[in-house]
Amino acid sequence: MFSEKNAKAGVTFPTGFKAAGVRAGIKKSGNLDLAVIYTEKEAAVAGVFTQNAVAAAPVYVSQEAVKSGTAHAVVANAGCANACTGEQGRKDAEAMASMAAKELGCKAEDVLVASTGVIGVNLPMDRVEQGIRQAVSELSETGSQNAGNAIVTTDTYSKACATEVEIGGKSVRFGAIAKGSGMIQPNMATMLCFITTDAAIESSLLQEALSEITEVTFNMISIDGDMSTNDMAVVLANGAAGNPVIREKNEDYRKFFDTLLAICTGLAQHIAADGEGATKFLTIDVKHARSFEEAKAVGMSVAKSPLVKTAFFGEDPNWGRVICAVGYAGVPMTPEKTVVEFGGIPVYAHGVGAKYDEEALRKVMSEHDIVITVDMGDGDSEATVWSCDFSYEYVKINGEYHT
Amino acid sequence: MFSEKNAKAGVTFPTGFKAAGVRAGIKKSGNLDLAVIYTEKEAAVAGVFTQNAVAAAPVYVSQEAVKSGTAHAVVANAGCANACTGEQGRKDAEAMASMAAKELGCKAEDVLVASTGVIGVNLPMDRVEQGIRQAVSELSETGSQNAGNAIVTTDTYSKACATEVEIGGKSVRFGAIAKGSGMIQPNMATMLCFITTDAAIESSLLQEALSEITEVTFNMISIDGDMSTNDMAVVLANGAAGNPVIREKNEDYRKFFDTLLAICTGLAQHIAADGEGATKFLTIDVKHARSFEEAKAVGMSVAKSPLVKTAFFGEDPNWGRVICAVGYAGVPMTPEKTVVEFGGIPVYAHGVGAKYDEEALRKVMSEHDIVITVDMGDGDSEATVWSCDFSYEYVKINGEYHT
Repeated sequence: MFSEKNAKAGVTFPTGFKAAGVRAGIKKSGNLDLAVIYTEKEAAVAGVFTQNAVAAAPVYVSQEAVKSGTAHAVVANAGCANACTGEQGRKDAEAMASMAAKELGCKAEDVLVASTGVIGVNLPMDRVEQGIRQAVSELSETGSQNAGNAIVTTDTYSKACATEVEIGGKSVRFGAIAKGSGMIQPNMATMLCFITTDAAIESSLLQEALSEITEVTFNMISIDGDMSTNDMAVVLANGAAGNPVIREKNEDYRKFFDTLLAICTGLAQHIAADGEGATKFLTIDVKHARSFEEAKAVGMSVAKSPLVKTAFFGEDPNWGRVICAVGYAGVPMTPEKTVVEFGGIPVYAHGVGAKYDEEALRKVMSEHDIVITVDMGDGDSEATVWSCDFSYEYVKINGEYHT
Repeated sequence: MFSEKNAKAGVTFPTGFKAAGVRAGIKKSGNLDLAVIYTEKEAAVAGVFTQNAVAAAPVYVSQEAVKSGTAHAVVANAGCANACTGEQGRKDAEAMASMAAKELGCKAEDVLVASTGVIGVNLPMDRVEQGIRQAVSELSETGSQNAGNAIVTTDTYSKACATEVEIGGKSVRFGAIAKGSGMIQPNMATMLCFITTDAAIESSLLQEALSEITEVTFNMISIDGDMSTNDMAVVLANGAAGNPVIREKNEDYRKFFDTLLAICTGLAQHIAADGEGATKFLTIDVKHARSFEEAKAVGMSVAKSPLVKTAFFGEDPNWGRVICAVGYAGVPMTPEKTVVEFGGIPVYAHGVGAKYDEEALRKVMSEHDIVITVDMGDGDSEATVWSCDFSYEYVKINGEYHT
């Protein structure tokens, strides 16, 4: 599904979508920093947004735009978060939508706005305006890569994917670009993610699918436990594929849902794996818990523990820190029923350390992708959380990133 | 209060207490690793313990011992946590109490047991037995420093204090030793802390005072958000000062309470300041919150944020990360009412960044002790949380600490 060819096509893989990414001069580095995604055909729209009480101005503007159920475009910038910028910030975010709408020939309320970068600094609106004008003039069906590169901050690469599936007898396409590698934490609030599809689906069902999927994908990753002020995931569905409009939870809906789930799962994994300074990609599988919520709480407790994360950075099979994090997750547990495995090798079982093949475990710890399994032995529910390790590089990136 | 002379006296400053610390060979380094604290005169005892679901064997043994309300001794080791050691661990912890009781000539149920160090490894009981025998033979009124050094792990120094106060017309003494610099997080579970006093006080009142004080001292520090399996704070009050026994919440109780509060506050601050790899001591004062619980939640959210902690390591006045952590604390807040100050200098006020003297702020950020004030502008409650920064050294210590 995440083939190189399709990934490059990204948000322009579905019929009727164009994109562009330009250098507006917002990032100090001079890199690409302003993106526009556009569909001439009106799209059903759905979005999930940060739950941070100091959500940034663009979040409020986009939440309003999503309410109508339809949209034509997304305009996003990196380098400045337009967060904690008060009344001026709100005006600037609204102006971004208006400027894009004017250039595109649509209404301002049909434009979603997103920003990411430094908090507490106002947007350089002259540069933003110039950038929007240029981006709109450069919109193309090969513009997804530039758009993806224009929304990254400390990411080491731009996340993108695309896929095709048959729904209602028609070939339906999906594409996405996403960014995020710091301030990554559950409760949505994880990143910027723009998903496009030419499927025809009612906006209320689209929202329901996105909200449900977010709970088991974007809300299941943790890099540093910090919840950003800015982040959002949105889906635009313009119906250009010509499938019968999905209006109920039928077979077509299930195919749509499964595809969107696969896309969001893949993006969530990529974001966790590309966490700031990460050298390991950790999957925490919690099994046999009494509920999804308890399984998630255990997984998140392990994923967020700095002691666990530094141990994996050091390739140290320190299962004591893992079981310790399980123990303080706030979930009832019975040590005697609990089993912890690293890469399928039991390291803690039934209250004590398990005997293991040291060489085999050393090999597991030396891999880039490591699966930590926590079997609570106490129910039928499960949850999977994705995380990364904690390295010197994380401290360097965040200790030297100056305001 | 925390004068050098008294601190050295530590747990042996109060009349009737002896202590010793010896090399039992439990720590790989060969340093002091086994401590005994003893009062021949029976002491009222109180304790608070980790809430981790995988609490270590010594925690259970000590919880039982505290239930009777009286005790004569504490035996503690570093280098091995005796956690996640199952039935054998429980037997070993009980054996530690029995061995010490036999040497001291008291009952096993009058001996508290504590361990700290690596999780999942069984205690070398032959060495522990030899160590207990030696420690008891070396008990003295100048043994507190050795005892303090015998309970440290990654601490850069042993925490100790002592003080004297008049209660009920008598001079009453208090002393303490404490350790803890990793796996430090609220909900008790913060460290090992042994406090002695020659005050006479009923054990139920002693427990009430300790529990109440723990909420605003040891439970208000966060180094890495990890809650240990092992930690405890206990007070032994042997009544040797001859003050009228404190049996109700009178003036004597209030003096006793205030002194214990000052001791626990000081130790909590020292533990936070000596966090693993710490280069900064951060005090987070949350004011004008709607309740203590909400103020604490906000303070802890800031204290635990890796992004905030790395920013202070980098001496970067990145208030955006602080207000972001306030925003996701799960507490209702109004950005327009909120003010954030670093070292008394407003950096965020009423929804936007505040204008500040850059040179003055740079000076604040360069200090070792930094106060972050968060005024929620929405009530009369407050809370103070103590934390430290996140450095390369933290990653080094915990990435290279091998099991």
